[in-house]
Amino acid sequence: MEYKFSERVQALKPSAIREIFKYAADPTVVSLSAGNPSPEAFPSEAIGEISARLLRDHPIDALQYSVTEGYAPLRNRLKRYMKETHNIGREFDDLVMTSGAQQVMDLTTKSLCNEGDVIICEAPSFIGSLNSFRSYKVRLHGVPMEEDGMDMAALEQALREEPNARFIYTIPNFQNPSGITMSLEKRKKVYALAKQYGVMILEDNPYGDLRFEGEDLPAIKSFDEDGIVVYAGTFSKVLAPGMRVGYAIAPSPVIQKIVVCKQGSDVHTNIWSQIVADEFMENYDYNAHLQMLRELYRKKARFCMDLLDRHLVPNKITYSPIQGGLFIWCRLPEGVDMPDFCKQAVLRKVCVVPGNAFLTDEDEPCQSFRINFSTPTDEQLEKGIKLLGELAREVL
Amino acid sequence: MEYKFSERVQALKPSAIREIFKYAADPTVVSLSAGNPSPEAFPSEAIGEISARLLRDHPIDALQYSVTEGYAPLRNRLKRYMKETHNIGREFDDLVMTSGAQQVMDLTTKSLCNEGDVIICEAPSFIGSLNSFRSYKVRLHGVPMEEDGMDMAALEQALREEPNARFIYTIPNFQNPSGITMSLEKRKKVYALAKQYGVMILEDNPYGDLRFEGEDLPAIKSFDEDGIVVYAGTFSKVLAPGMRVGYAIAPSPVIQKIVVCKQGSDVHTNIWSQIVADEFMENYDYNAHLQMLRELYRKKARFCMDLLDRHLVPNKITYSPIQGGLFIWCRLPEGVDMPDFCKQAVLRKVCVVPGNAFLTDEDEPCQSFRINFSTPTDEQLEKGIKLLGELAREVL
Repeated sequence: MEYKFSERVQALKPSAIREIFKYAADPTVVSLSAGNPSPEAFPSEAIGEISARLLRDHPIDALQYSVTEGYAPLRNRLKRYMKETHNIGREFDDLVMTSGAQQVMDLTTKSLCNEGDVIICEAPSFIGSLNSFRSYKVRLHGVPMEEDGMDMAALEQALREEPNARFIYTIPNFQNPSGITMSLEKRKKVYALAKQYGVMILEDNPYGDLRFEGEDLPAIKSFDEDGIVVYAGTFSKVLAPGMRVGYAIAPSPVIQKIVVCKQGSDVHTNIWSQIVADEFMENYDYNAHLQMLRELYRKKARFCMDLLDRHLVPNKITYSPIQGGLFIWCRLPEGVDMPDFCKQAVLRKVCVVPGNAFLTDEDEPCQSFRINFSTPTDEQLEKGIKLLGELAREVL
Repeated sequence: MEYKFSERVQALKPSAIREIFKYAADPTVVSLSAGNPSPEAFPSEAIGEISARLLRDHPIDALQYSVTEGYAPLRNRLKRYMKETHNIGREFDDLVMTSGAQQVMDLTTKSLCNEGDVIICEAPSFIGSLNSFRSYKVRLHGVPMEEDGMDMAALEQALREEPNARFIYTIPNFQNPSGITMSLEKRKKVYALAKQYGVMILEDNPYGDLRFEGEDLPAIKSFDEDGIVVYAGTFSKVLAPGMRVGYAIAPSPVIQKIVVCKQGSDVHTNIWSQIVADEFMENYDYNAHLQMLRELYRKKARFCMDLLDRHLVPNKITYSPIQGGLFIWCRLPEGVDMPDFCKQAVLRKVCVVPGNAFLTDEDEPCQSFRINFSTPTDEQLEKGIKLLGELAREVL
């Protein structure tokens, strides 16, 4: 039978990078293409203790239907915590628990955008968010990235050119895929421009707690006196992504619409995992846990950058050192065919993600690829980066 | 600030029944308006055992990112189980795990319907599904229910009148809210009509395993030689709704689109709960568990119907006896103002759901209200139905 699909999903063609990911499933291939937390990052014992207690003492709380807004004690705790630690959340804001931060992207778009509207995003940006936006038949307008965040002239031009722009999507800390952190000056400028042009900001911050060097910068949401920022947070990188627990902090009218959409989407987020996250923050040393994660990723990132310095940099591949997050963005010399380089790499049993996968238009030229250092073991990192270096020495 | 929302969510106005649910939060009000499984229905001890074992022996499996399609052992088990027990699933079908069956409604609509398309549904029908459909700016065409399912003449007329109809939505077993089960003859007829008019069927079956009297009828999906039926299943009524684990069985091209949409929606369903569901089916006596549930609900339904016979029927409120599910549909005499009756009931401290909440057009006349017998205790059921009887005696 010929199936007739909606126009919105017809537009979602399988990505060009799928081809390469097929190879990554081969166990003999070293994958530097994932984005998973390190297996050492999970507080499995604490989660086991909390869950055992919960199912023994209050099983129905964990297993019964719950409210769409999320587990009230966790919502209240996060409101307090984000206010105290990040100055996020004002009188006019509210908080809804979501099924991972991905659902914030999904339901914010559903709530704010008509088909044909425009979302302004960093180029490159996180492919999962871009695809979620595309599924609402919006048009993406990419703004090139500089070392300290979006090119502000290009952002302003985009805002001038796009009267139907609904929001600016940004990952200000250790951006996926570029690793770039937006400067304080640009954060203020993005906020001012959004306000001036009457568009909202969707601030996605999965990696903010994973800074292992330098000073924390304030979230754009912390400037939000005007109620124009939707902030997306998540436990995926700091507790466990398999639990799918994230949240949005945004002006109450926006949260109300997200809640209505969420009710029709999945009713509520797994309540068992919400309670576990709440009790972890209550009864365990959350700060010490975050500190452990930073130590872990500092070590792994340094180990990885040492390998890059040894094997790639001498062979004409450059990269920008990072201060947090899980990704490093590597750049091939001009004139080199990047997708072909990635294809050759995978034939030599090392898999990276070609950078064009993260562009609003995959066909634009791109000289970069993304590597991840949190998922592979040190041995795999060493083996994979050596293989990339050998390839670079031969073909560049 | 004035927020500009998408047209699709502007259309989602708060339901008329919200007003009444506010009263239901009052702990002195007896709520017969929920739809939760009975607290006695949860195999909490088994879930605790499985989870403890899992977090001890394979914590990373439960906590790490997983694939969008769902936990492979559970997908394979459900494919085998549904084929063996219900003759559901053919060569051309596939199965995706979802965040509750609600997500099947959401993503099927997203995959199949453009804005302005039509979904044909039973009238009344489940409000959560109707709202999910509405959020895609589709138009709902309701088909009146008879004692054995939709009015087939009205269904055929709807199909003739609506060239943009994309699918027929049905809950064939113990429908929410009406409690009606579609006859075998009508199941075959719905399938034949869908085939004839080139529309699909979305078969939602949350209550099929909760038949406590009479003989099981085959699912419409079991007739599906042509690949036109999307079947939605769930663990919410047979294991634990708080875990949010459901699934769709549909032709592979449809499942592929649902998977692409799901990736942008919540990446994947809580994997911890998926593994727990899988091991429950593997290592515990699943049939004995279903048998326990049927016994539990048989007793509660009989208790409830006895109360209705004693307190409502003599006071002019009628109902259709049920053979399964969680809901009973009660009918006031013609000429009585049903919403007003429900409002008066809540002022007397008993809360039911006014039937118009379940209509495609809430403003249509409706003489019925829904009561639920699975959530309240026997004491609450007795108290609540007595209160309804007193009100009926006074005002009808």
